[in-house]
Amino acid sequence: MSVNTFGHLFRVTTWGESHGPALGATVDGCPPGIPISEADLQVWLDRRKPGQNKFTTQRREDDAVEILSGVFEGRTTGTPIQLMIRNTDQRSKDYGDIAEKFRPGHADITYWQKYGIRDYRGGGRSSARETAARVAAGGIARAALAELVPGMTITGYMVGMGEHQIDRSSFDWDEIGRNPFWCPDADAVAVWSDYLEGLRKAGESVGAMIEVTVSGSPAGLGAPVYGKLDTDLAAAMMSINAVKGVEIGEGMAAARLRGSENADEIFRGNDGAPVFSSNHAGGILGGISTGQDIVVRFAVKPTSSILTPRKTITKSGEPTEIVTKGRHDPCVGIRAVPVAEAMAACVMLDHLLLDRGQTGGIRGPIG
Amino acid sequence: MSVNTFGHLFRVTTWGESHGPALGATVDGCPPGIPISEADLQVWLDRRKPGQNKFTTQRREDDAVEILSGVFEGRTTGTPIQLMIRNTDQRSKDYGDIAEKFRPGHADITYWQKYGIRDYRGGGRSSARETAARVAAGGIARAALAELVPGMTITGYMVGMGEHQIDRSSFDWDEIGRNPFWCPDADAVAVWSDYLEGLRKAGESVGAMIEVTVSGSPAGLGAPVYGKLDTDLAAAMMSINAVKGVEIGEGMAAARLRGSENADEIFRGNDGAPVFSSNHAGGILGGISTGQDIVVRFAVKPTSSILTPRKTITKSGEPTEIVTKGRHDPCVGIRAVPVAEAMAACVMLDHLLLDRGQTGGIRGPIG
Amino acid sequence: MSVNTFGHLFRVTTWGESHGPALGATVDGCPPGIPISEADLQVWLDRRKPGQNKFTTQRREDDAVEILSGVFEGRTTGTPIQLMIRNTDQRSKDYGDIAEKFRPGHADITYWQKYGIRDYRGGGRSSARETAARVAAGGIARAALAELVPGMTITGYMVGMGEHQIDRSSFDWDEIGRNPFWCPDADAVAVWSDYLEGLRKAGESVGAMIEVTVSGSPAGLGAPVYGKLDTDLAAAMMSINAVKGVEIGEGMAAARLRGSENADEIFRGNDGAPVFSSNHAGGILGGISTGQDIVVRFAVKPTSSILTPRKTITKSGEPTEIVTKGRHDPCVGIRAVPVAEAMAACVMLDHLLLDRGQTGGIRGPIG
Amino acid sequence: MSVNTFGHLFRVTTWGESHGPALGATVDGCPPGIPISEADLQVWLDRRKPGQNKFTTQRREDDAVEILSGVFEGRTTGTPIQLMIRNTDQRSKDYGDIAEKFRPGHADITYWQKYGIRDYRGGGRSSARETAARVAAGGIARAALAELVPGMTITGYMVGMGEHQIDRSSFDWDEIGRNPFWCPDADAVAVWSDYLEGLRKAGESVGAMIEVTVSGSPAGLGAPVYGKLDTDLAAAMMSINAVKGVEIGEGMAAARLRGSENADEIFRGNDGAPVFSSNHAGGILGGISTGQDIVVRFAVKPTSSILTPRKTITKSGEPTEIVTKGRHDPCVGIRAVPVAEAMAACVMLDHLLLDRGQTGGIRGPIG
Repeated sequence: MSVNTFGHLFRVTTWGESHGPALGATVDGCPPGIPISEADLQVWLDRRKPGQNKFTTQRREDDAVEILSGVFEGRTTGTPIQLMIRNTDQRSKDYGDIAEKFRPGHADITYWQKYGIRDYRGGGRSSARETAARVAAGGIARAALAELVPGMTITGYMVGMGEHQIDRSSFDWDEIGRNPFWCPDADAVAVWSDYLEGLRKAGESVGAMIEVTVSGSPAGLGAPVYGKLDTDLAAAMMSINAVKGVEIGEGMAAARLRGSENADEIFRGNDGAPVFSSNHAGGILGGISTGQDIVVRFAVKPTSSILTPRKTITKSGEPTEIVTKGRHDPCVGIRAVPVAEAMAACVMLDHLLLDRGQTGGIRGPIG
Repeated sequence: MSVNTFGHLFRVTTWGESHGPALGATVDGCPPGIPISEADLQVWLDRRKPGQNKFTTQRREDDAVEILSGVFEGRTTGTPIQLMIRNTDQRSKDYGDIAEKFRPGHADITYWQKYGIRDYRGGGRSSARETAARVAAGGIARAALAELVPGMTITGYMVGMGEHQIDRSSFDWDEIGRNPFWCPDADAVAVWSDYLEGLRKAGESVGAMIEVTVSGSPAGLGAPVYGKLDTDLAAAMMSINAVKGVEIGEGMAAARLRGSENADEIFRGNDGAPVFSSNHAGGILGGISTGQDIVVRFAVKPTSSILTPRKTITKSGEPTEIVTKGRHDPCVGIRAVPVAEAMAACVMLDHLLLDRGQTGGIRGPIG
Repeated sequence: MSVNTFGHLFRVTTWGESHGPALGATVDGCPPGIPISEADLQVWLDRRKPGQNKFTTQRREDDAVEILSGVFEGRTTGTPIQLMIRNTDQRSKDYGDIAEKFRPGHADITYWQKYGIRDYRGGGRSSARETAARVAAGGIARAALAELVPGMTITGYMVGMGEHQIDRSSFDWDEIGRNPFWCPDADAVAVWSDYLEGLRKAGESVGAMIEVTVSGSPAGLGAPVYGKLDTDLAAAMMSINAVKGVEIGEGMAAARLRGSENADEIFRGNDGAPVFSSNHAGGILGGISTGQDIVVRFAVKPTSSILTPRKTITKSGEPTEIVTKGRHDPCVGIRAVPVAEAMAACVMLDHLLLDRGQTGGIRGPIG
Repeated sequence: MSVNTFGHLFRVTTWGESHGPALGATVDGCPPGIPISEADLQVWLDRRKPGQNKFTTQRREDDAVEILSGVFEGRTTGTPIQLMIRNTDQRSKDYGDIAEKFRPGHADITYWQKYGIRDYRGGGRSSARETAARVAAGGIARAALAELVPGMTITGYMVGMGEHQIDRSSFDWDEIGRNPFWCPDADAVAVWSDYLEGLRKAGESVGAMIEVTVSGSPAGLGAPVYGKLDTDLAAAMMSINAVKGVEIGEGMAAARLRGSENADEIFRGNDGAPVFSSNHAGGILGGISTGQDIVVRFAVKPTSSILTPRKTITKSGEPTEIVTKGRHDPCVGIRAVPVAEAMAACVMLDHLLLDRGQTGGIRGPIG
């Protein structure tokens, strides 16, 4: 069981450290014949790329992806696809201080304890830079989904930043791509912008709430009981750096509801397919998609890389303080949005393949 | 990739339906030489067993577990352990109505759509009865942990029921086993009891919030980046029936915090081991345990099996209504507590084995 | 990675010991809607059952299989199928002697060394009785293949017993089921019968060579480079008790050939599909089926359970001798034939599902 | 289940095509703290490298390996190790002819049928060039084994080439590295040299028999019943290009033996550990190592790339002939030797980790 791999049939293994020569993803199990190019993948990587505005780390990385295998004359061959991204702006001098000190809220101390060795430069393997590889792999998944389920869309967006939330009544899908926060509420953007600028100047950071909606999924995806669609989506999101909670549909709020409030009643739509009166379930019942929108939401903690001195210890156990002066993001949640989309795309494709493997894509008819 | 299996090295495959002859768990990868008996397992099963008080389903099941393999002269042999639980009180007449109608909020419609066939009796495979097998397997995991990490404890409890929450300042570990809600707050018990009795009489149901704390875990467990300890715990909990959200430590609330509020500072304890000023992280950093308490929390939705008629359709697509008259629980979250403990035990043992496989149990020294 | 499980999508986990209460197979990933009954499975189990003639162990076992889950109203539901076989004739008194002594050529000593505990009764988990569970699982695979690839046949037979071989020019498919050796050469049967009777009376045992032919396989099954069809068939056969070698097509003899002798030339058949001048490849090129007959062959060693005293040691390290007086087979290869068929059926179905998962069953056209 | 991955805990995923920009291996699960450098790996790659003498393909490849991740300051960190080998001498003009024609005995036709697209340049993914990645990964495994089991040696050698075999009585371990055939019999070298030179000039090819011996393995490795040590070794070897048969110890010849001839009697050695009178078992009983030499043998077919015209068809189904004029090996078995050693090293390390994961390395004492 490769612990740097996720997926059942569409399997992605990421590799690489923040300040090594390169990082990437080994993608196995992609359907053959899918049109794909480096330029296609670069579109997604550019959305996650650092240094694009003042709200994300000023580290300069091209994040240029190279396809080293598995694609021939512009189409996938069904063999492993190797996606490599060179690290170019490594400036490791920024990180010299953390060779000896453990940063609070970071994986420094646990990697050290587990492995007895750690690449401390920029967090090494535990750096969020690893997520660039996920985004590249997600680009492959999206290309395959575009062929296999043409109507499916996968959209991530930020619904909360620190103490601020979007107003759901102002939700505008088109707004999402227009602001640096992937925020669907135009009124919130101005508020969040001022808020985050204040935090940035104060050397402070803040958490965020992200949501991903998958529209156009066929019913029937997900494999009970331990490969449930919601289980795999939850695992995919929880594996992203700094994520501390994941919910599906009504989520944690379901704990406060009554049965009469929560169940989605079923009707027959004009085209004969089932329709539901509501979507508390988030598009998944018993681990299997209903055909409704699939809605997954997760919380990203505020990064611990702040300018306020924090108490910690050194490898030799001495008490000390640390201030993280590197180039960091005041709200790492922003860059988690394209990562979450990528993870959702990988999970959806994986379950599509898994389903057609077992069932051949048959569907129990209704009506 | 067996979708009815979870775990990397300690692997549990559950099988069986609500109203078939039996259900159970095939447990592979258990360390050899662990003392275990059917009586040891029964202790855990009895905690989940239905019909123990008026707040859980009146279905009568002994839930007597049989060990069919893998144990010799009272100790595990390292070969697969088969745990079987016979279904005795099947009363399938209660469920005749649901052969044709899809219950809202249940997996009836999605199983039908995916497989084109479903065992409708009591929900078949999607019934929460499947969790009895998890509890049995969890009993094996607990026995192995007792040998390998004698000080570890795994305790689940309910921290919220519908609109009511516990008062953390009244938290009492000893209270948990004294009331039917696994509630750690004695004052809350009376309130919840009246509240739930009212809901039960009204044929209504309610959601719940459960928390599991693992104390005494060594640092260093968890395998980044897709076999993180929090990722696997999240998946384990999300795979439980009716769970809609999972959090670690600060959880969803982390989205609202600032970096200066969230990071846990590090100090050196009297015994030289690191100690932390707080536990926002829930005992896990970068997917690896810190040695602090591991805290995972999840929300259980209210069951849709209520006495209020709900609109739905039949297999032939006709609109209809359904009232679930079976023997059901007004708060299914209650019985999720021992299930969650069992899942946590399986994850902890699995990661213990995985860690010693890769690292041999070496630990980077501090100080 | 469950080490008692084989298969990618159609996954079989066997469990149970020779003298425990029961043994069986947990089968996950079977396509839904496949017609199956206990009687259907019993047909295959009866072929492997001991005590049917004087050439197989006189242990009396009904080997009656029970389906405990995953089948509803006569069809598979897509959920795990639990197959259980009770052990009825355990007569453990026969095996008392081996509690302290390690039988040469058996797994007694290695199980002891690895696990520090072993169920010595009848070999425990290492007993060939475990293969009954494989045969039951293979029956499920055959039923699914009958639906998905109606023309496929999977036939095992013995091509050599000790110093005797079949004459390929006398090969008769119909003869296979008519004699106790699954021998396709009627002339060989009489010779083998006398030969084995002599060995049996002398308390001696002998090895065997088994071949399995899969006819009617579609081209395109097998997943390079580590899930090759031949790799998985080789692993499946090598996992059977007492197997010491496996070959595909020309097999070990290929080492002695020249390129001009070994390559199978390609032509176009009357129906447009490719045909080959020969089948040195055994139906597999680059790990993928060609559409020709798939031919796998393996050697079964003679059992070490013989009446001649053999030198060994006890658990306390003392030198001693052992004579195995239990009820054993002079040629265990005979009963390996239905086991090998079952393993081949599981591999073929697994690869069929794996292929349609990744490719959707598309095929590159020729002509 | 990634089909381009092998291993349970030490997992190797290879990627890349013969004529793409690069190929390599993603190695996950390596123990941390293992000293390793590119130069250490290069030693093993140079043994497999083409163009070293007149008996191997004249393709010029440096096969220079780059470590892109997972190693920090000269030691493994426990995170994924990416090993990349650039393809430098691609000369794809040599292969233009095979874009339309299927080479007999090659995977051209099956890749086409399965995927509907194939990278025909040099065989694409099915090229034996993929094995360079295995050798690199094997170098990592060897380095880890050197730390964990210092006395273990893994040695491959050729025991037969076409109609010629070594004389076992002339076996000389030191001779293996002195001749281009990895042949342990000095007398055979001269004969084989003339023989192969004749075949080479005739544009002919020949098969080979390879053996790998693992000495110094602890007892207790291997995980019954589907992760047996012999099962995994067989699968590892069978997955190598052109391999058609695999045997352990006595191998296929066991089919001809009697029980009294085959069983290895057990004695107590001077140091108290068990010793055996012989090694028909090839060091493995019941899938678990005995502590004796582990002996695995396999047959490599003669390559179909010969100068004799062979009949075949084109993608459009037209009959044609093909002569393979590329730079090929008259005996591909020669270069399979270092590949087989690498595969054996990976399997041994994997089972070492798997065993200590489950059992913690405990061993049942004898005496």
